[in-house]
Amino acid sequence: MEMTELREELIESIEAHYEKRELSEIKLILSELNPADIAEILEDFPDNQRLLFFRLLSKEDAADTFVELDPDIQESLIHKISDTELREVLDELYIDDAVDIIEEMPATLVKRILKNTDSETRRSINALLKYPDDSAGSIMTPEFVDLKKGMTVEDAFKRIRRTGVDKETIYTCYVTDESRHLLGVTTVKELLIHDYDDIIEDFMETNVIYVNTLDDQELAAQQLQKYDFLALPVVDMEERLVGIITVDDAFDVIQEENTEDIQKMNAMLPTEKTYLKTSVFETWKSRFPWLLLLMVSATFTGSIITGFEEKLKALTILTAFIPMLMDTGGNSGGQASVTIIRAMSLGEVGFRDYFRVIWKEIRVGFYCGLSLAAVNFIKIWVVDKTLFKNDEITLLVDLAICLTLVIEIVFAKFIGCSLPMLAKKIGFDPAVMSSPFITTIVDAISLLVFFGISSAVIPGLS
Amino acid sequence: MEMTELREELIESIEAHYEKRELSEIKLILSELNPADIAEILEDFPDNQRLLFFRLLSKEDAADTFVELDPDIQESLIHKISDTELREVLDELYIDDAVDIIEEMPATLVKRILKNTDSETRRSINALLKYPDDSAGSIMTPEFVDLKKGMTVEDAFKRIRRTGVDKETIYTCYVTDESRHLLGVTTVKELLIHDYDDIIEDFMETNVIYVNTLDDQELAAQQLQKYDFLALPVVDMEERLVGIITVDDAFDVIQEENTEDIQKMNAMLPTEKTYLKTSVFETWKSRFPWLLLLMVSATFTGSIITGFEEKLKALTILTAFIPMLMDTGGNSGGQASVTIIRAMSLGEVGFRDYFRVIWKEIRVGFYCGLSLAAVNFIKIWVVDKTLFKNDEITLLVDLAICLTLVIEIVFAKFIGCSLPMLAKKIGFDPAVMSSPFITTIVDAISLLVFFGISSAVIPGLS
Repeated sequence: MEMTELREELIESIEAHYEKRELSEIKLILSELNPADIAEILEDFPDNQRLLFFRLLSKEDAADTFVELDPDIQESLIHKISDTELREVLDELYIDDAVDIIEEMPATLVKRILKNTDSETRRSINALLKYPDDSAGSIMTPEFVDLKKGMTVEDAFKRIRRTGVDKETIYTCYVTDESRHLLGVTTVKELLIHDYDDIIEDFMETNVIYVNTLDDQELAAQQLQKYDFLALPVVDMEERLVGIITVDDAFDVIQEENTEDIQKMNAMLPTEKTYLKTSVFETWKSRFPWLLLLMVSATFTGSIITGFEEKLKALTILTAFIPMLMDTGGNSGGQASVTIIRAMSLGEVGFRDYFRVIWKEIRVGFYCGLSLAAVNFIKIWVVDKTLFKNDEITLLVDLAICLTLVIEIVFAKFIGCSLPMLAKKIGFDPAVMSSPFITTIVDAISLLVFFGISSAVIPGLS
Repeated sequence: MEMTELREELIESIEAHYEKRELSEIKLILSELNPADIAEILEDFPDNQRLLFFRLLSKEDAADTFVELDPDIQESLIHKISDTELREVLDELYIDDAVDIIEEMPATLVKRILKNTDSETRRSINALLKYPDDSAGSIMTPEFVDLKKGMTVEDAFKRIRRTGVDKETIYTCYVTDESRHLLGVTTVKELLIHDYDDIIEDFMETNVIYVNTLDDQELAAQQLQKYDFLALPVVDMEERLVGIITVDDAFDVIQEENTEDIQKMNAMLPTEKTYLKTSVFETWKSRFPWLLLLMVSATFTGSIITGFEEKLKALTILTAFIPMLMDTGGNSGGQASVTIIRAMSLGEVGFRDYFRVIWKEIRVGFYCGLSLAAVNFIKIWVVDKTLFKNDEITLLVDLAICLTLVIEIVFAKFIGCSLPMLAKKIGFDPAVMSSPFITTIVDAISLLVFFGISSAVIPGLS
């Protein structure tokens, strides 16, 4: 909240200066802000003012701010700036950021961007663009500090001082041989601890943890988090070091993947843009397919009711308990599925734990069912029968409802934990096997159990 | 999958060496692993073997591995090791890690742990223990590199070399005055770029972004991510620098908060342990309260049906559409609520966007409703009426169902986006205003709309 207020104050003050044409004041304000904040502020201004303010930024700030802007704003800025300005921005960008930007641009702009980079950068960008979406290769940067094993600490620092300015991180240094195979890794902290004439080979860490260019970006992010690294090396098929993934990119990957999982878990197709930037039509497109599928599935549940229609006419009070039984079953199954999906995505649970998980969920389901049934039994007897004097309720009706609860919850927990694990086993995304989908299945099962038990237990319904 | 296989191979080979009492071989295997991996392997062995293997680790590895172990395993290890061994582990720990461990231990062990730390560390630990759970202060570490503004680059490197070994990160250095007020910040990268006799004050960044000890840890993590920092300074009420939060801790906070949000969004109380470590009873405890609350709420939905009982008897086919209408309403509302909760937790949407969000959701709801109603209208007419020759279905019945769909979905989207925003506004956690809760409310509204429209439109029901 404070942040927003601060930003609004800044925007007002910039507007005031703008009206008085005090551009140097605006320049001063912007120069004191972090690029992430400058970007947020620029996004609040119309195109022409934004361009004007963007041109007030230092070369370095301009590039760093550019990276933080929304793709559509980046696009409109590129359209308006000259080739020289564009080249200056591109010169300052890290290659992985340049790739991120290019991936969002229309083909004509991509051409113009590539035309304005030097040939080496262009080659690197083109190489990175070839990696599949969501692969480790697609988020790595080829700019890292590489050292040779025979170097002394002094050599290493010289090399870092000479080449480090343009690297996204200099703190983790990789030791490679002539054919770029990864031999070891060390850090600037290690270098600072050792004497100037110590040889890198003598203290570098040789058990290097790395990922492959084609590994999933989520795996890379998880490894980085697990080992508390600032950067993770990425090797190609021939085990040659081709890039690194830095912790800030891993952080973004984790947040993206979390958002994607949450969307899938709740019956939506993932969208990449932020909520307010997604158009009504795009939002509709991400939500309609699942709603349709689930609606059609739910009509099967309806036909179960139709099949039982005659008996429901004989004892209409049963209808009144359908929502409660359906909701409770759905919620129970949803709890299990969401828990398992999350545990799998954090790497806590794998298919090897299948039977352990099922056995646990069945027990949890049994206890949940039993405790809810107990509450429900008393509630039906005291409130519905005694208080509201509903004569249709008999001991057997009450029992049938509560027995249904126990059985359906055990079923719900079983299905809720099984489906995501099986989905993953056969190569599907477990996140779609979540609450809404489970609910639809559990609904049908709950009704079948309810009508089955009622028919068996309540005289006059069989 | 590969990782798991690798780990299992390692465990088998350690077991084989253990049977032949080849402890030096085991020592060699362990010494080549990363502490995070050693911890995973140790957790697979029984207490006595674990202690034996733990004692094979180097001092530094022992401490780093200890941090990665589960709290209950840490506890049993502390019980078994001598005071000397405990002191060695504690000496190597970063203070924030020591605090994390202490927070999970029973009081008697805490005493023993504190007794085995030097008085300065003990003071720091006690100070950190006082910060509220989930505050920035509770996850910070007081060990950081502080410089004075008059220092040269050479002085700075000398200081880092002398004091840096024990710091969790040395890459971000903070410039403070005599009363520990934060004057500026610089990085080792900056230091390496500058000449040895440059003065820190001349190039340090003075616009420092920081958080307060009492700020939410999630805010701190978000700031760190937004600005791509490796560490974020934390100041006390008097604006004195008291600690820093490192990126690896921020990473963990984000994952924890995501898990917590996902649990709350799906009607569970948050649990801190991983899935397989949570007992059946604890899992039951986290799931039962919400199931109970939602079950009781759903009985109100049931009583809406009871109130309409007589009319349902006259036209039983309506009952068959209740599951479809309830599920679709619930899913639509759930989509909206989850989207908004996530957007709020990522800081993309705030209460200032309230009307913009509602207006968007109403339109999305209208289009979703319209498209689903169209599909449904045709399906009822072609499948239910023509194919299955259900005579109860008339044009007006079909219309009543489809009109209900449109209205309920608009309502569901409106409620789904409103409740989380309002909850946050009045200080509640928006995540609990999620699918299951929204479903229950939308269920009741859907039925009221359905019965209302049916009564109005279908002759013989009014």
